[in-house]
This record gives sequence, C-alpha cells and structure tokens, in this order.
Amino acid sequence: MAAKRCLVLFDLGGVLFGSGAQGFLRSFQSRGISGDFFLKAISQGGVNAPFSRAMVGQIGLTQLISELEEDFKKMATTSETPLPETFSMGQIFQELFAQEVFSIPFLKAALTLKNNGFKIAVLTNNWLDDSPNRLHTGLVLCLLRRYFDQVIESCRVGLQKPDPKIYEYTLKELKAKPEEIIFLDDIGANLVPAKQMGMATILVQSEEAALKELQDLTGVQLLNQEEILPLPCEPENVAHGYVTIKPHTQLHFVEMGSGPVICLCHGFPESWLSWRFQIPALVDAGFRVIALEMKGYGDSTAPPDIKEYSQEEICKDLVTFLDKMGISQATFVGHDWAGATIWSMALFYPERVKAVASLNTPYKPANPKEDIMKRIKANPIFDYQLYFQEPGVAEAELEKDLSRFLKAMVRSAKKEDWIKGASIDFTNVRKRGGLLVGVPEDPPPSSLLPEPVLQYFVQQFRKSGLRGPINWYRNMEANWRWLGSAYDRKIRVPVLMVTAGKDLVLRPEMSKGMEEKIPDLTRGHIEDCGHFTQMERPAALNKILIDWLEKIYKNTSLQTVAKL
Amino acid sequence: MAAKRCLVLFDLGGVLFGSGAQGFLRSFQSRGISGDFFLKAISQGGVNAPFSRAMVGQIGLTQLISELEEDFKKMATTSETPLPETFSMGQIFQELFAQEVFSIPFLKAALTLKNNGFKIAVLTNNWLDDSPNRLHTGLVLCLLRRYFDQVIESCRVGLQKPDPKIYEYTLKELKAKPEEIIFLDDIGANLVPAKQMGMATILVQSEEAALKELQDLTGVQLLNQEEILPLPCEPENVAHGYVTIKPHTQLHFVEMGSGPVICLCHGFPESWLSWRFQIPALVDAGFRVIALEMKGYGDSTAPPDIKEYSQEEICKDLVTFLDKMGISQATFVGHDWAGATIWSMALFYPERVKAVASLNTPYKPANPKEDIMKRIKANPIFDYQLYFQEPGVAEAELEKDLSRFLKAMVRSAKKEDWIKGASIDFTNVRKRGGLLVGVPEDPPPSSLLPEPVLQYFVQQFRKSGLRGPINWYRNMEANWRWLGSAYDRKIRVPVLMVTAGKDLVLRPEMSKGMEEKIPDLTRGHIEDCGHFTQMERPAALNKILIDWLEKIYKNTSLQTVAKL
Repeated sequence: MAAKRCLVLFDLGGVLFGSGAQGFLRSFQSRGISGDFFLKAISQGGVNAPFSRAMVGQIGLTQLISELEEDFKKMATTSETPLPETFSMGQIFQELFAQEVFSIPFLKAALTLKNNGFKIAVLTNNWLDDSPNRLHTGLVLCLLRRYFDQVIESCRVGLQKPDPKIYEYTLKELKAKPEEIIFLDDIGANLVPAKQMGMATILVQSEEAALKELQDLTGVQLLNQEEILPLPCEPENVAHGYVTIKPHTQLHFVEMGSGPVICLCHGFPESWLSWRFQIPALVDAGFRVIALEMKGYGDSTAPPDIKEYSQEEICKDLVTFLDKMGISQATFVGHDWAGATIWSMALFYPERVKAVASLNTPYKPANPKEDIMKRIKANPIFDYQLYFQEPGVAEAELEKDLSRFLKAMVRSAKKEDWIKGASIDFTNVRKRGGLLVGVPEDPPPSSLLPEPVLQYFVQQFRKSGLRGPINWYRNMEANWRWLGSAYDRKIRVPVLMVTAGKDLVLRPEMSKGMEEKIPDLTRGHIEDCGHFTQMERPAALNKILIDWLEKIYKNTSLQTVAKL
Repeated sequence: MAAKRCLVLFDLGGVLFGSGAQGFLRSFQSRGISGDFFLKAISQGGVNAPFSRAMVGQIGLTQLISELEEDFKKMATTSETPLPETFSMGQIFQELFAQEVFSIPFLKAALTLKNNGFKIAVLTNNWLDDSPNRLHTGLVLCLLRRYFDQVIESCRVGLQKPDPKIYEYTLKELKAKPEEIIFLDDIGANLVPAKQMGMATILVQSEEAALKELQDLTGVQLLNQEEILPLPCEPENVAHGYVTIKPHTQLHFVEMGSGPVICLCHGFPESWLSWRFQIPALVDAGFRVIALEMKGYGDSTAPPDIKEYSQEEICKDLVTFLDKMGISQATFVGHDWAGATIWSMALFYPERVKAVASLNTPYKPANPKEDIMKRIKANPIFDYQLYFQEPGVAEAELEKDLSRFLKAMVRSAKKEDWIKGASIDFTNVRKRGGLLVGVPEDPPPSSLLPEPVLQYFVQQFRKSGLRGPINWYRNMEANWRWLGSAYDRKIRVPVLMVTAGKDLVLRPEMSKGMEEKIPDLTRGHIEDCGHFTQMERPAALNKILIDWLEKIYKNTSLQTVAKL
C-alpha cells in the first residue's frame, strides 16, 4: 500500500504564481529575442553565472539585474545577435513582477488541503529581492509565511534546485519522509531528484491538469470549489495588545496587518475570536485589523458597575483607546451589541470614524418622545432582554455551565445546528423561568464552535463571568436618552449594513428606511445566514466587507500632522 | 498673595491654531463680501441659528454648511447684497481647514508648561466634524487628547462659550478652582465670564504679546525657546503588545500611531523606554511606531542559551515577528547592539525592510578572512566585551545592584553627568577585575534616567537579569561568519547613519567609508552627544529621523495583495 501523502510542497514561480520561467521567455520573445539566446545567456558560466550566484544568495537581485544586462550585451556583440537599443534587464524584471500574481486556484487548493489536515509548504529557487520594487516580494513572503507551514527559499539556504542537497535540507526542515510528500514544480529537472528520493511529483504545465492530479493523489476535492472556508487565525499565533483606558480598566485586542485601521467589535456573548475568519482576509486585502475584546469580556476589564456599560461610556472608552493608540481614524465594524455601538460612534465621534459597518444590528434613530422599554416589551422576541434586566438572575443561571450556555446560544441556521430543543427560544423566557429552561444539559455541538474555539470562549468567560456582558443590556433608557440627543443629526460617514436572512432576533426588515438618515448607505445581505454572521458565512461576509472597504479607501491619501 | 496658577486653559481656533474667527472674515472679504454681512448672517436667529445649534452638537458640520449657505443666500436676496455666483460655504470651510495648522510657538509653550509641572487643557467652541474632510479634525483631536490633560469641546457638552455654565462644567471636569487657571482666548466676550469667576485671562491678538503675558504669569520661559524637550510617553499610557515567536519565546513591544511601520530596536543595557522621546514625535509625523523590547530584556522572553542571541537568530525572530503581525515591510531603527541587527536585516531580509537607520553603530562588512576576536582585542575600548565573554561573571557583578550599574552605565556626555569616577571606564576592565570596580556604591543620578525611568529600567531588568542581554556579546564569531556570507552584497535599501561626537566606544570615525557598500546613505551627526543618543539629544535626533523618513516615504503608495 502507498504511504500516506500528508504534505504538499509547492514551487512558487509557475505554480503558486501564474508566471515563472515562462514569463522570462515571453518577455524576451516580445522583444524579438529568441528563447534560445536567453537560455544560453543565463546558463553560461555555471555556478559562477549571475543567476546561479543570485539563487544561492551570494548577490541580491539589484546586482543580478546589472550583471545579467552586462552579460547579455556582451553576448549579443560576440554572437552578432543585436539587442534592441532600449534593452533593459530592469524593465524585463518589472514586467515579470507585474505578472507575478497568485494563482487563485492553486492558493485555494493549498488552503483547502490545509483545512483538510494536510501540511503545506513552499520550496522555491528565489533571489534575495533588494530592488526598489521589493515591497511586492515582502507582501508575498509575509502572506506565504503566515499560511504555509514552511517557506524554503534557495537564496537563504545557499543551495538551489535541482541540487539534491536542497531536497535533503527540505526533508529535515519539514521533519518529513519523502514518501509523505507530493511535490509540484513547473520545471521537469527540479522534479527528478524529488522523484528519485520517493516523493510523488506533479509537473505543472496546465493549472487544471495539475490540480486534477493533486486531487487524485490527495483524495480532497480541489477542482470546481465554490465557497471555501477561509483559514482562521488562532489565539496563540496572533499579537495580543493591552491598553489601559483609565485606572483599573484595560482593553485587550488582537492585531494583525498594515494599512488603514479596521476595528472589529464583537457582540453578546462572544469574543474577538468570533472574527477569526475575517482577520487574515482583511489583512491580505491591505488593512490593519484590530479585533477588540469588548469591555466586560475575557482579558478586558469587567467593572461591576452597570453604568460602565452604557453606550456613552463604551464609546468614550473606544475614543480613549484610539487616543492612546495614536490612531486618528478607523473604520468600525460591529456585530450585535457592538452594532449599536458603531452607530453611536458615527453619530458622536464622526471625526474618528472613516466608515462604519454593522452586521445584523439596524440603525434606529432614538426619538426622545418614544419610550424604549415599551418598544422592547411590545416585541416577544426581546423577552430575553427583559429577563436580563434584574442584576444577578441571568448571571446565576448562565454561569452554572458556560459550555452548555454557549453551545445553545451560538448556533447557526444550518440544518446540522438547528436541532429541536438544542438551541434557545428567545420568547417567553421570563415565563419559562430562564433562558436555558428546555435546553438539554449537554446540547449537541455547534458547528460554529469547534472544540478548541469553544474551549477558548469558555476560558475567556471564566475570567469575569457574565455580569459585564449582560450589563450591556441594562442601560436601555440611558442609551436611548444619549442617542436621542443626536436625533436631529444624520449619519454622514459611509455605512455598510449587512443583514442576515435567518437572524430570528435582528430581522432584515428592521433595517428598512435607514437610507433616510444615512445618505451614504451600502447594503449587503446574506440570505442563508443566522445571527452569528462572521462564523456562519465567513467567505460571503468577507467578500461583502472587502468590496465595500476597497470602495471606501480607494484614492485615500492619509495626511500627516505637521511635525513639532 | 495671588493664588498659584497651575493650570493653563487654551482656546483652539485663534490660539493653538493660527486661524480662528478671523479666518472666516478673511475668507468672506477675499470674495468681496463685507465682514459685517458675515457677522450679521451668522448671528441672526439666536440659539436656533445654525452656528449655535452646531456648537452645542444638535447638528453636525455637514448640515451646518448647508444651512449656512441657504441662510446666506436668503439674506443676500433680502438685503440686496449680491453673493458671487460661485459662492459656496463648503469651499469657505475647506479654505479654513487648510489654514488650520498648529501654532508652533503656542504648542511649544504648552508643552514647556507641561514639562514644568503645569496642567494644560483646551476649551473650545467646536462643531462635530462629520464632513468628508473630517480626518484633519481627527488628527488634531487625537494629538490634543494625547498631549493635553483635558480637551473640552462645546459640541460634546451641549453648552458653548460664553455661557457661564460651560466654565462651571470645565472647573468640575478639571477639578480646579478659578484662581488656579490662566485662560487664553482670541474672542474678548469669551474671557468675560472667566475673569468674573476669578481666572486670569489673556486676550490673544498677537502671538508674541500673548506668550509674553503667559510667560510673566507663569514664570516659565516661553519666548525664544530653542531646543525644547519633547514630551516623553510613559509605560502606563501606551499600548503593550505581545507576540509568541515560537513556543516559550515571546516578544514584548509598545505601539503607537498609524501609518507606515517604524520599528525601534534598543541596545545594551536598555529598554523600549529609551525611545520615550521618539515615539510620540514619530506618531505625530504620521508613522506607526513599534518599539520592541529586545530578546533577553524585560517582558520579552530571555532564553538562557547563548545561540539564541546570535544576530542570525535575532533577525529570524524579527522576521517571524513581522509575519505574525502581518506586516510586510518596516523601517528599522537600531541603536548600539540593535544597530548591528538592522545592518543584518538590510542584508538578509531586504524585502521586509523599507529602510534602516543606525544610531552610533557603523556598518563594517565582515570579511571572512579577518579574525573578529583579533580585531576586538586590538582596541582597548572593547575590553569590556572580552570581560563579558565568560558566562556568569559579568552577570554576577552587575546584577548585585542594578540601580548602581544602570546609573553608572547610562550617562550622558553633559558636564552634569560627567563626574570623575561616577561613570564606567570601558578599558582595562579585566585587569581591574570588573566593570564597576572604581565606581562609587551609590553613583550620582544620571540626567538620562529620571527616577521613574530608572525604576522602570530596574523593574524590567529584575525580570530576567543580565544573562540574556550579555549573551548578545557572546556570538562574535558566529555573527562574523553569518555576516561574512553576505560579504559580496551591497546594502541597497535607503540608509541613515547617525553618529554622536562624544560616544567613546562607537566613534564617528568608525563609520568612514560606509558609502562604498551603501549607495543610498544619508548621514546625520550630533556633535554634543554621548552614547545614549535617543535620551541625550532627543529633539536633535527627532529632527534628523523625521526629515529622513519624510524623504523615504514621500510618494509611497503601498500596494495591497489581491484578495483571495
């Protein structure tokens, strides 16, 4: 029986990138220079040739370009093959870089394999990019090194394919046997030593044929994939930050990426980890993500006082957070309770807000003449909010078994999660005498909370319990008064409202008419989605978010304050 | 006797900003509209007038602009004062924003007062900026709220000057008596209630006259200031981040700002806090600062193994740090030992480096044929490095009294610090039998380490002692070999080399000839400066750094990776 192939090793140029050695050939041919001339020129000189010296890191790309140009010009003279007057190696490399975009089918295949338990790695002959265009290489490597288990580059090892030593080095680094590896490369010669050692090899000539081979070898569907699950980030692999907002009150956050700041704010009863599928995706789209753990939760402080959780206080904290972080403006994305918060941020601190997006929570202007409690009482689905009013009651019920509470509460609208009696009925909570009355002692697992995620949630909630999180519900009238003071204002910042078709509490129809108070409103809707949008339909949500963000940040040039 | 005036309250427009109400008048007059017409137009309607409603936050700036335009047009018709065809309130406000730059003399005065123990605050009639240009307001408020003890804006309080209630509100917020306050405003009417309450008031008509008055009232020199000490940041007021680089190894950092990443790396025996004067200045210049606590120090992990501190390992850690932070590229600024590190980053990971700056530490290409230990032995000033070689010896001596060690080591070249016998002699250390032999038991304080800073340093060094920090010196030959593998390369990224005239170990002349291997080299030199450049001459260094960074980042447009 064949060994279990559990590690897929990808070449970069020509495989994960659409363009590799073929790109060079095309660039030369488009200048009327024969491919033969090119191949002869780069291969002459053996290990002392510029290409070879660059691949093992003796020289960087800048020097490679200038040495290659010199060699080509010399060869053109001696071989009487004239080069165009304007011939420039620098230009040819720039063309190559412009073609260097990820092959989306290959990248999707790699991530799908990783989601299916495979290890994925990169083995590439690569130069050390010290050229003025090196940011592109930096972006690519930063992304690859986050997603792949290992990235091995010839220029840092001092060895290059097809030297058998680099394959041996690779096996050692990966702590793997050849029999466990499938290796893909677009140059046949590079596959030879790999095959001899016992790796399965795939020569990449056409994307589809190669993916078909890979699919057959792994037994994982890689062709014709539709929505793939984005790779989530994990608590132990991200940067954790802490800011002291005022004495004895700190906010905890997770941070990743570079660029304009997108601040993600979770709802009840959740965690920054609810955004685990959004964080890497937004980073790859060019943003700096700050996923907050909201006040009352986990490693953020949970003061006991109810007033600490009014929207006015929460927003003040967020502004102080921005101040101490030295961030003038951010886009706030909020879900559930934090959806309400982002509306207040847009109304009360527009100068600190580039744009806001709300998931599920609609904007409802607070008419000072209306009685908010009356409105809540009028809708049976809000009965759980009334149950939450009496301090200590819901805490006592829900803290008894955090795992039971979370599994029953955080469920999707998918069939697999929608088991009669497994999830919470939000109506008649007070009459039933509790939120979990009727829920089994050990509810079936929720597809939204795989075991390690559930354990992280439970661990975080153990830190301060549910008093803080439930206190968010206990400022209804104060919130309404504060929001009411802005009743005459419109929301002038760009807004995205994402509704979910199967959210039973925050129904899409509640968002009707928002256009009246929000001139710049973009809408997104995910029909097959329950309340926990980020975790239930991450790929769909990421697409909506990124499309909107790219529109918002197009042509933005961030100013800087005059130096002192 | 007069009460002690210990709190200075500044108006914004017309005081901290060069342009206030006068700016409006000028904008109108430049359009051939009389100032009278303008004043009449904005004052009509009393508390229901748009201006008044905007100042108390009932409406935002966007609505203010459109209501004002409507009012003006109406008034022009009824009063038969024609407005120019192209009249646009939006344009007038844009002109105002363009004029809205900080008054450097006033800002310098405020910071000098703060450095002299005064409280400083802002009291302004201000609109809620929800206009498309609101980023400017965001930047201004973010800066003010970091430097000033309090920023009070009419639009958030629901009250406006000269309503006495806003002064009462201000006293309550500042927890101050009127007799303690000096209040500056450019509108006489706003000073009246303040004066009546007992505040000292200054009507700001000319910058110089007002500063003279303020100088007389406070007794602090505010006119003709040359180099002012930048305001430092404090450990309890900044964001602290933690990244796990590998199991059991984390890096701690302090982070502030938004924009391109500048990564500050301290030397021996120091802390991220050595950069306390650079962090806010770089933030104000539009950068995101990440000040690392290097491996072996404070809240970063200090593994015992010597190899962990080789430059190769340190650089690998830095790249992993960037990976996990999702940062493709940063500019690295290193001092002392980290000065060596940034040269390696530029040589081995150029694609992750936008530019590098070294303070004091010159670049010396590592010729594989040269013996590094011989070279160290040849220079008597490096004798302390030889003393550091034997594991445990220097640790035992220096850990005995961290405060004594730090005070003796971290001193400036200023006369006040240069007391015979107070600071360390770096030659003949082995012969003397220790670094501190000859240093008094309780050295006089160092001007670079005010008591709270010294205490923070001591506290951080107590966490893991000196083994990690001294291990940086114990990889001389391994470092030389690694650096030697790049001997044929040039450093192609932009470089800043800052030399200090009075650094006794890292002499400016050691940096001669660096141009040969570094084509894009900018030089800075501070003649009156010892080894600890960041703390000894912060203003001079900040100017050099920011001028260079602005050159580097001019016209940079950061690309984003294609979304998946």
